[in-house]
Amino acid sequence: MNRRNFFKKTAVAGAATLLIPEIVNAAMPEFPSTNETQGSQLSKGNIILFQGDSITDAGRNRENEDKANDQQMLGRGYPLFAAAGILAQHAEKVLKIYNRGISGNKVFQLAERWNKDCIDLKPDVLSILIGVNDYWHTRNGQYKGTLEVYSTDYRTLIARTLKELPAAKIVICEPFLIHGGSALDDTWEPVFKAYRQVAKTIANEFKATFIPFQSVFNEALKKAPAAYWGADGVHPSLAGAQLMAQAWLKGTKI
Amino acid sequence: MNRRNFFKKTAVAGAATLLIPEIVNAAMPEFPSTNETQGSQLSKGNIILFQGDSITDAGRNRENEDKANDQQMLGRGYPLFAAAGILAQHAEKVLKIYNRGISGNKVFQLAERWNKDCIDLKPDVLSILIGVNDYWHTRNGQYKGTLEVYSTDYRTLIARTLKELPAAKIVICEPFLIHGGSALDDTWEPVFKAYRQVAKTIANEFKATFIPFQSVFNEALKKAPAAYWGADGVHPSLAGAQLMAQAWLKGTKI
Repeated sequence: MNRRNFFKKTAVAGAATLLIPEIVNAAMPEFPSTNETQGSQLSKGNIILFQGDSITDAGRNRENEDKANDQQMLGRGYPLFAAAGILAQHAEKVLKIYNRGISGNKVFQLAERWNKDCIDLKPDVLSILIGVNDYWHTRNGQYKGTLEVYSTDYRTLIARTLKELPAAKIVICEPFLIHGGSALDDTWEPVFKAYRQVAKTIANEFKATFIPFQSVFNEALKKAPAAYWGADGVHPSLAGAQLMAQAWLKGTKI
Repeated sequence: MNRRNFFKKTAVAGAATLLIPEIVNAAMPEFPSTNETQGSQLSKGNIILFQGDSITDAGRNRENEDKANDQQMLGRGYPLFAAAGILAQHAEKVLKIYNRGISGNKVFQLAERWNKDCIDLKPDVLSILIGVNDYWHTRNGQYKGTLEVYSTDYRTLIARTLKELPAAKIVICEPFLIHGGSALDDTWEPVFKAYRQVAKTIANEFKATFIPFQSVFNEALKKAPAAYWGADGVHPSLAGAQLMAQAWLKGTKI
């Protein structure tokens, strides 16, 4: 079965409807409405892994990192809220959900720890959000990676993952800016948009599910300013993290 | 406007659908389906307060207790997950959500701190979950309160609240046992069920919204054992807290 189609099965009887704010529905018109599609192709005992940088890490407790479904292990970001939704919804499936995001990571740093923090966990669903540091850390000259490095490293990482875990369902999350945030200025967007495009291109190449977080935050900013969704423009607030989780759940149909 | 009717208005255009697991829908048949009713009568700047014992407290950071909507102030329990849903859904309303639950509290202890931790906050929506300690703490002889004390104290507290805050919408949450939990035995239910009935009776008397958490957990136990929803039978797990939040959101129609 094609990985993309994994997430496109129709609803199972009695499936829940999903808390999808207007913002998410408006940002994701290409995804079918939840009532038509909500359901899950997850199998009993499936393992879900969230990977990424500080947005994923979100203060998770590393001492419990092998303790599936533990709240403090999951951190305080979108993986927590996505996991909560999944665990309440699919109790009978005895799923195991992990967060292995690490603050500051760029793609090459995921690669360095990929055996321990991804392959060895044998995820059935692997979600990755990476890219903001690949650009951000070039701005002060401490990191020399280019857009091409991001692209090559990311493509190599996904190919390696699918070689080791050919049945894994891959979710590629769009790196995003919450425009108006205090850490950003107008010089970010013209450069950073190319990083977003790379993530989308790689998702298409590997038939991965792509979660359009930039569209979600662009919609969100019509309702409230960056201070509400993520004050520095990079790290989401509680409301921002919840919005991401809802977009993730809608996009994956989990 | 009658307080009960506050929560029974029909949907506003474009309102979201809500993540309501089968469990919650099965447990709350008396509530209309979300698609018919989802919406919110919350007004801009409304204040929502969660009050209760350890189930509400859930490790909240007391140093930030005046910082509305702060994730660590909200704790790790159902108030966090309810707040996340509300804040993502109603960004334009600039709501302020607080948690003032304190571990170990019984009704009389809420009363002792009610001016500071409720009245002074002037909540537009006040949610209370209290009762398990009113029974639990009698089991080792350290607390002498009876069912009648619980009933009288609770009724007095709600009357006092509505005298001070006549427009407040009151949500009374059913105290519950997660049957099979390690802290419980078969002697709990025959006594504790009367405490639940008191909470429901008081909700009816004051036309408050009643959230039937016992029904929710009874349904949940058909899908997974107590270890999944709350190992000790009193304190919910991540999945249990999310389920409570979803029941709360469904019940209040916020």
